Amino acid sequence: MRILKDRILAEGRVLPGNILNVGSFLNQQADIGLYNEIGGEFARRFSGERVSRILTVEASGIGIACVTAQYFNVPVVFARKFRAKNVGEDLYSADVSSYTHGVGYTITVPRPYIRREDSVLLIDDFLANGCALEGLAALTLAAGARLAGAGVVIEKGFQAGGRRLREMNIRIESLAVIDSMSPEGGIVFRD
Amino acid sequence: MRILKDRILAEGRVLPGNILNVGSFLNQQADIGLYNEIGGEFARRFSGERVSRILTVEASGIGIACVTAQYFNVPVVFARKFRAKNVGEDLYSADVSSYTHGVGYTITVPRPYIRREDSVLLIDDFLANGCALEGLAALTLAAGARLAGAGVVIEKGFQAGGRRLREMNIRIESLAVIDSMSPEGGIVFRD
Repeated sequence: MRILKDRILAEGRVLPGNILNVGSFLNQQADIGLYNEIGGEFARRFSGERVSRILTVEASGIGIACVTAQYFNVPVVFARKFRAKNVGEDLYSADVSSYTHGVGYTITVPRPYIRREDSVLLIDDFLANGCALEGLAALTLAAGARLAGAGVVIEKGFQAGGRRLREMNIRIESLAVIDSMSPEGGIVFRD
Repeated sequence: MRILKDRILAEGRVLPGNILNVGSFLNQQADIGLYNEIGGEFARRFSGERVSRILTVEASGIGIACVTAQYFNVPVVFARKFRAKNVGEDLYSADVSSYTHGVGYTITVPRPYIRREDSVLLIDDFLANGCALEGLAALTLAAGARLAGAGVVIEKGFQAGGRRLREMNIRIESLAVIDSMSPEGGIVFRD
């Protein structure tokens, strides 16, 4: 997706430790016009998948998922990272390790929010080691629902997550795949 | 806002400890049609405020803020609850205590994302003790920006936050104000 790659090149900052800071437009400050371009692109790519529900995990994927949902006209379900007091016990859960924050966590969704007859599209801002998407896929399969695939804004193609998820036969659509990046060498996209 | 109050009465569940579970449509599963009604209503109420930026705090306010931002055509800034590795040190910060989760936390925003010339609209799903909004207001004022006000979906009018914030001369627009609620007595709205 050209408009996205251009924005990453213009504003993304590569930090030590394979961290890409795109906070200025994607995941701490949201350019809502760009979010709409992203949502429309996911809608085009997954138009044949009878998507009935979008599933994401808090926090930074929520905005992109909500804007995208407008193009599918379906509800969004947010998996929670912490078991809060105001959630009941009837939950699907999956364990996730985190690259960015260095600690693992459990994600949960109340059982009524994913139905067996659903076709679920996963949405997230980043795909790196794939643990978050793998957890969301596990929640979907635990519900007995169909997994339509995963829409990812930026995939770190030099990490193992994308390959592992595709080997699990999960359809992954990444709008920008980075093949290499470094503070010195800049960002190189696939293709 | 009638459509919202009807939905709260139909699907909201009052749990012990003054907890209102509206997860089925507002903050764990998002009805995006309702989100658009909410966004349009905030746009009407704050139309005279020259809003140039929307500020919210992760996680459940993000979706509502992003859909609302489409009506103002402005960026959304997400205050973070944890200092993650991929955020630099040049931050505004404010301390917040949490009613739902029982522990306090610090919220932060990178300084470049709120400018002195901004007119900032705060958006959140709930207003109870007001600590989250008070923290967002503090970030806004620390940046030297104008505080346009706060748009709240559900205000627990029987808790002190709304009164305290209004006494601070902050414009609060709550789309549904609950005067009392209990598992036995149900939900009573103001008006």
